[in-house]
Amino acid sequence: MTSPSDSLTAALARFHAVIPAGGVGTRLWPLSRAAAPKFLHDLTGSGTTLIRSTYERLLPLARNNVMVVTGESHRTAVTGQIPELAEADLVLEPEPKDSAAAIGLAAAILHVRDQAAGRTGQAGTIMGSFAADHVIAPDSVFQGAVREAVATAATGKIVTIGIKPTHPSTGFGYIRQGEKYDVDGAPHAHHVVEFVEKPGEAVAEEYVASGNYLWNAGMFVAPVALILDHLAAAEPELHAGLTEIASRWGTTAQQETLIRIWPTLPKTAIDYAVAEPAADAGDVAVIPGYFTWDDVGDFAAIARLNPAAQQESMTVLGSQARVYSESSSGVVVSDTQRVVALIGVENIVVVDTEDALLVTTTDHAQNVKQAVEALKEKGDSDVL
Amino acid sequence: MTSPSDSLTAALARFHAVIPAGGVGTRLWPLSRAAAPKFLHDLTGSGTTLIRSTYERLLPLARNNVMVVTGESHRTAVTGQIPELAEADLVLEPEPKDSAAAIGLAAAILHVRDQAAGRTGQAGTIMGSFAADHVIAPDSVFQGAVREAVATAATGKIVTIGIKPTHPSTGFGYIRQGEKYDVDGAPHAHHVVEFVEKPGEAVAEEYVASGNYLWNAGMFVAPVALILDHLAAAEPELHAGLTEIASRWGTTAQQETLIRIWPTLPKTAIDYAVAEPAADAGDVAVIPGYFTWDDVGDFAAIARLNPAAQQESMTVLGSQARVYSESSSGVVVSDTQRVVALIGVENIVVVDTEDALLVTTTDHAQNVKQAVEALKEKGDSDVL
Repeated sequence: MTSPSDSLTAALARFHAVIPAGGVGTRLWPLSRAAAPKFLHDLTGSGTTLIRSTYERLLPLARNNVMVVTGESHRTAVTGQIPELAEADLVLEPEPKDSAAAIGLAAAILHVRDQAAGRTGQAGTIMGSFAADHVIAPDSVFQGAVREAVATAATGKIVTIGIKPTHPSTGFGYIRQGEKYDVDGAPHAHHVVEFVEKPGEAVAEEYVASGNYLWNAGMFVAPVALILDHLAAAEPELHAGLTEIASRWGTTAQQETLIRIWPTLPKTAIDYAVAEPAADAGDVAVIPGYFTWDDVGDFAAIARLNPAAQQESMTVLGSQARVYSESSSGVVVSDTQRVVALIGVENIVVVDTEDALLVTTTDHAQNVKQAVEALKEKGDSDVL
Repeated sequence: MTSPSDSLTAALARFHAVIPAGGVGTRLWPLSRAAAPKFLHDLTGSGTTLIRSTYERLLPLARNNVMVVTGESHRTAVTGQIPELAEADLVLEPEPKDSAAAIGLAAAILHVRDQAAGRTGQAGTIMGSFAADHVIAPDSVFQGAVREAVATAATGKIVTIGIKPTHPSTGFGYIRQGEKYDVDGAPHAHHVVEFVEKPGEAVAEEYVASGNYLWNAGMFVAPVALILDHLAAAEPELHAGLTEIASRWGTTAQQETLIRIWPTLPKTAIDYAVAEPAADAGDVAVIPGYFTWDDVGDFAAIARLNPAAQQESMTVLGSQARVYSESSSGVVVSDTQRVVALIGVENIVVVDTEDALLVTTTDHAQNVKQAVEALKEKGDSDVL
């Protein structure tokens, strides 16, 4: 019998990290926008973009086995951030097709590589998917959870990492954990009973009080073959299309196939296409994550994540910011060199960019998305 | 005996309007600033700058007899606004020296012209001084008050036009009127008992309730000889210096004399140097002004003055403004083409210029001056 550390080492050798870098982050407009989405910004004052931080956090586990799935228009920006990325590991979507297509294509490409290398069944790649625009700390605790997830995935499970809730949030979906799942190298693994949608306040409080619910952070680790099996069952058309694209990946027919098939693929979330059906089938496990996690959903999050950037009671972000504040609190994100003077405004959010300015409050930070939609209708798309 | 209309016509023939265009209007920063002071802006959405509106309001009374006193750096801007201005009627101060020097120099220059033309005593020029950056309506009512002031000044008085208060403001000085003063062509003229400083709230309420007090809008009409007599008595050094500059005005020695003497002149307000001593001597009369008057002291005034520019509950100023607002109220002054999005901010003031941005509330509009002083201390003078 192999020791836990031997089996974990063997599983990690099959690990390939996938970073889906999609999503504009509309609630962070006008900082985050189509041409410069959230993952290309440094939102924590660390000096590093979110995608680079994500890459560096995965590197000790994945070594060079990291794939990025992003929009065609972000090629230069992404390779600028991750010059180490292999050409074969940069997957460029001709247009956004939601997470099932993005993550499914990564799985299909890795699966074709497995087949070419003669790795089948238990010997195939275990992929881990981690969004490019989340903020996590400390890295070591995150990496420990991913190690447990890889060990658990090696037993033939789709493994999600759920975040131990710090408060009854109504902004996230939850994962209901069941019995402990006994796996070598994964002392915290549990079965997943179900995924549940964003709850109301009362239900969220019950969830947190019960101790059986974790936040769904959209992170999962699984053998690519298992992901594709569930995808084939739930979304056969999507699976067929992705399989065809993957079969031509890295050949001279890659682009022609991608451009022909991609636009025809159905748009759906990986949660519906894989995670939920797999949970119903009893194929999903969860590792609780005891690290801090933030999806930087709005500007209120930016104020929360940057205590070190505070000038008195203002959080100021922007390397060239020239902010003067008096009797004011909140957050200023400055993407220009302009002087910003704030007088007598409380919980204010000011986001100053070259062509657009947002003024709101931390309480209204979630409404930015509607404003962006309204601007689109008004014909102001040049700044979106 | 001449009829009232004959004597008024004779007095108006001696009328010369003076427009002091000084004062940065610090409380309107960053729109108004050293390089682009308040009087060069259109703050009412009329399509016309305040100085041009002031000029046009005086033109029917003064014909071409209009003089502007402003800073040297505003020569091009002012002549651009008033191309009709005679070179001899553009008085450029090498540096700001407060209102007594500015208005005193205008009086001294006009007095020298009178002497050269043999107009002495009762035949001399009656000047009227009106700030370049006030908002007045309707013009016809203002012009009626000025006509009465000119008729009254012709009897040898310094005549101020006081504004009938609409509320007990603590932001203005007041004029206490005494007995009616019986003048042909000026049915509303009264003696002035005294000028009083900005009162507290209780006192302001008493003033307004009494019906004997008017707001001091800094407008006055008087024979230049009388102004200079009072100036000579109260500020002999200033009077001597201005007389010497005026004696060389329009000669080749003009600039040399101005540059040599101007920096040595004492800084004081025309109120202290002329108006108050003259009132003590019983030489001041007042015409009540029944027109609306606003000195556009801060951004709250801009919101008040621009009801027509409202988009729902936001007042929007700026010809190229692209403003989107939701659940918000207040005023946006846009000096750029940027999109400005406001969400859930009440009574907000946003002033968006190329190099500086102000975010405050209408309640804090008066504090902008302190902010500008703080920026100066911080070394941000490039945007002031």
